[in-house]
Amino acid sequence: MAAWTITKTGKSVRYTHERGVFSLDFNHSLNFDLTTLIDPGFHQKANKVMADTEKGVHVNESEDRMVGHYWLRNPGLAPDKGIGDEITRAVDRIEEFAGNVHEGRVANEAGEAFKYLAVIGIGGSQLGFQCVSKALSDYRFKLGLFTLDNTDPDSVDAMIRSVGEGNLDKVLFVVASKSGGTTEIRNLYTVLERVYREKGLLFSKHAVAVTMDGSAMYEYAKGQQWLDIFPVWDWVGGRFSVLSPVGTLPLALLGLDADGLLAGAYAMDELTRSPAYPDNPAMLLAHYMILQSEGNGKHHLVVLPYKDKLDLWGKFLQQLFMESLGKTLETDNGPRHSGLSIFGNKGTTDQHSYVQQLLAGHNDFFAIFIKVLQEKGQAVDTEVEEGGVTMGDYLLAFCHGTMNAMKARGRESMAITMERLDPFSLGGLIALFERIVGYIAAYVGINPYDQPQVEEGKRSAKAIIEIQKKLNGLASAGGDLGVDALKKSFAPDEYHVIYYLLQHMREQGRVKGEWADYDGLLD
Amino acid sequence: MAAWTITKTGKSVRYTHERGVFSLDFNHSLNFDLTTLIDPGFHQKANKVMADTEKGVHVNESEDRMVGHYWLRNPGLAPDKGIGDEITRAVDRIEEFAGNVHEGRVANEAGEAFKYLAVIGIGGSQLGFQCVSKALSDYRFKLGLFTLDNTDPDSVDAMIRSVGEGNLDKVLFVVASKSGGTTEIRNLYTVLERVYREKGLLFSKHAVAVTMDGSAMYEYAKGQQWLDIFPVWDWVGGRFSVLSPVGTLPLALLGLDADGLLAGAYAMDELTRSPAYPDNPAMLLAHYMILQSEGNGKHHLVVLPYKDKLDLWGKFLQQLFMESLGKTLETDNGPRHSGLSIFGNKGTTDQHSYVQQLLAGHNDFFAIFIKVLQEKGQAVDTEVEEGGVTMGDYLLAFCHGTMNAMKARGRESMAITMERLDPFSLGGLIALFERIVGYIAAYVGINPYDQPQVEEGKRSAKAIIEIQKKLNGLASAGGDLGVDALKKSFAPDEYHVIYYLLQHMREQGRVKGEWADYDGLLD
Repeated sequence: MAAWTITKTGKSVRYTHERGVFSLDFNHSLNFDLTTLIDPGFHQKANKVMADTEKGVHVNESEDRMVGHYWLRNPGLAPDKGIGDEITRAVDRIEEFAGNVHEGRVANEAGEAFKYLAVIGIGGSQLGFQCVSKALSDYRFKLGLFTLDNTDPDSVDAMIRSVGEGNLDKVLFVVASKSGGTTEIRNLYTVLERVYREKGLLFSKHAVAVTMDGSAMYEYAKGQQWLDIFPVWDWVGGRFSVLSPVGTLPLALLGLDADGLLAGAYAMDELTRSPAYPDNPAMLLAHYMILQSEGNGKHHLVVLPYKDKLDLWGKFLQQLFMESLGKTLETDNGPRHSGLSIFGNKGTTDQHSYVQQLLAGHNDFFAIFIKVLQEKGQAVDTEVEEGGVTMGDYLLAFCHGTMNAMKARGRESMAITMERLDPFSLGGLIALFERIVGYIAAYVGINPYDQPQVEEGKRSAKAIIEIQKKLNGLASAGGDLGVDALKKSFAPDEYHVIYYLLQHMREQGRVKGEWADYDGLLD
Repeated sequence: MAAWTITKTGKSVRYTHERGVFSLDFNHSLNFDLTTLIDPGFHQKANKVMADTEKGVHVNESEDRMVGHYWLRNPGLAPDKGIGDEITRAVDRIEEFAGNVHEGRVANEAGEAFKYLAVIGIGGSQLGFQCVSKALSDYRFKLGLFTLDNTDPDSVDAMIRSVGEGNLDKVLFVVASKSGGTTEIRNLYTVLERVYREKGLLFSKHAVAVTMDGSAMYEYAKGQQWLDIFPVWDWVGGRFSVLSPVGTLPLALLGLDADGLLAGAYAMDELTRSPAYPDNPAMLLAHYMILQSEGNGKHHLVVLPYKDKLDLWGKFLQQLFMESLGKTLETDNGPRHSGLSIFGNKGTTDQHSYVQQLLAGHNDFFAIFIKVLQEKGQAVDTEVEEGGVTMGDYLLAFCHGTMNAMKARGRESMAITMERLDPFSLGGLIALFERIVGYIAAYVGINPYDQPQVEEGKRSAKAIIEIQKKLNGLASAGGDLGVDALKKSFAPDEYHVIYYLLQHMREQGRVKGEWADYDGLLD
């Protein structure tokens, strides 16, 4: 903690590091201050769970895995030196690779430098990167950026037309899938391989994989001789992976300061593993969030950063919290559901969207406002109103004004203030909330590191794809696709989905007929 | 209704128009089908309210205004011919203006054609446009697009650097503020005026206003001789304004088919004013939504379009529903709060984000999935898996798979299926939900067209700006900004905000000292 000075004043705590300052302020809270304790024993218990986590205990019990995102920014913390070495080696390799790309030593088939970066990833393999790259963007990325994060064919087409068919040879793809088996990712690079082949180019000479050693995509990339493969490890959950090569590789390729992010996260981790309360900001905020949600039944959090560049922060937290905490715990009294719904874009803009309901509608939420004091650029000093008032003055005034209005109407909120938005501070913000998730999960008694129910949707989809294959076979063999024949070939509980698969095929010209021809399947 | 054929099969209703088809399918619902009626008298009551609305009754009672977004797509419906003529004249003027810009007859000071469009607007004056332009984007906009929607100085800087200082002379600004007094908009054009002036350019020769006749911004634009002024009317609410010049002007400037949008909305309006149930799709969906929220206490709706281009639809509905329905109704039994929280981005992507919580966490929500059957472009036909499986097959399979998983876990959902995503269909989707909001409000007994509490945040912010001006005055006069002096000059309930205003000023170099110097204000 030596790098930090902690100052408590009123209902706020300020954390000062030579590389950045932030504060947590509960001034507007209706029910929480620095002395509020839900459960005095809680933070010792949570600290123990966190110490075990950092030590390499298999706290991800259902998957029997360690949880090591804290090692990513502190390789020496890892339980064995081999892990720490792998982390460090990856950091070094990324720095080297990014330099090679920027200086044209890693280039396309014709030896020309890459000019564009297309990041292919979904969920934890994309969302953190999108949020961080936007937040740190000075609009001077070293490569033009595109992202593909869905099995939506229109977007591949859109990407190609945006970059320009003539520029496809200058695109570098980072293809991220921790498990190496993510269907949407496989679909995307399969389609792109064909696009490149038809243009006389080799996709493999444009592709870098980020995946676990030995995964299906690892073997594929190796066999296809992709430009390189960077590691991710089974002890890094997808939604905790932005500070692993999943995030740091594309960030470094854009020219952003991944080291600064890691340094900020490292520094925050020091604060957030402390047993001192309320000094530990993650424990403090976890207490606050637990009081509102578990204590007061407000299972909805609205995130309001007053900063355009942070408008994906809400989406990032949405995954981090909801996928971690949205669980069913089987107890002696039956199943107990947990979770915290999150939404929110940015202020002041959201004031003109849903803040009306926050002020006057159901009081089933609490809000976290985020202020950033430093501004940059030529618009900062302009007087927009007599009396020396600037744009930024209004941004801050509206933030406080909205918090005041919420408090006056009995709606709960607190505020995080950051001195500036830079890699160090953002890395700290990420690390703060990663730790909070762990503490809340310890309180609720759940494993925040798995996501077991996500498989159910995938399994159902796979079964539907098998049906799709049968329909494809019937269609290409000129088989009978009339309703009566279909009803004989398939089970009644399949009729409904078959109806829609056929409508989709019909729209693609893969089967003939009119929409109504298949209505008999819905009766 | 003659343009539509309505077909009911099973638990779904299909609406067929020669320009597009859509269906509402309640197959996965746990509690609703085509025979469910919450309140048999409801739809007659709601139809009467809607008929009054379309006729020009002042249904926006608190503001004593008519509500006429339905006239925007059907000028003949307006209660007096003058209004209808204004609507038609605006449509024609927009078409002419867009043509003039595209063909260089409206050009910059040097007579060169504009190449970029920057839309300045916030809330209803931006969100609908952003959603529609993304949804209809074929990535071939006639002008490069930028948007500014906040009083955040960093973003003005970012826009300038993205477009390039050398290209500022080719930017056309659409500045939209219905009331003409929106502070964030005033701030943005004030800053841009300075930027342009410093470059020897006249912002006024790059600006077009969209505002109410006679508003403050109207008079300003006229006095400054902006290129043109387009109307919006007090009978169009901000969140209902995307089909007014607020949306159609920038859409036409991008080269998108605003007429198609209006035609689709017009056609949907025919369906949604029908007294026939369950034929009327807005009444049907309103019943459904009321049952889940008002009936079953699920005040949270997750919107899941399985289409990248629709990923702003959730944000659009977030404003449309939350600002309309998030109200406090004073009743004899005390205040009654209403509202429907909305979030959601797109599938499959969100499956990798928060769907875990939807399946296993608190069961306090319901979901609306949106499927689009038609796909476009070179990626559509590629086989991604043996058996002729395409990317789009997986998109649809994952949609149904997720719906199946939700149903199996007792979580409520329904699905809207669209034949295609084009202006006609999207205009219809907008009109459908605009009507639904009106029907839900009629059931709950509230006025959905005002937003009274939004003023409270603004009033509080204005008071804070007055404090800011005093601090600015003290700073520039070299006055005493020590804590003791400040505490004498200001009231105790102002100390907290002054602390943050000073920290902001300190970060900008407008006052001296260290963060801790002002801590005494927080005690």
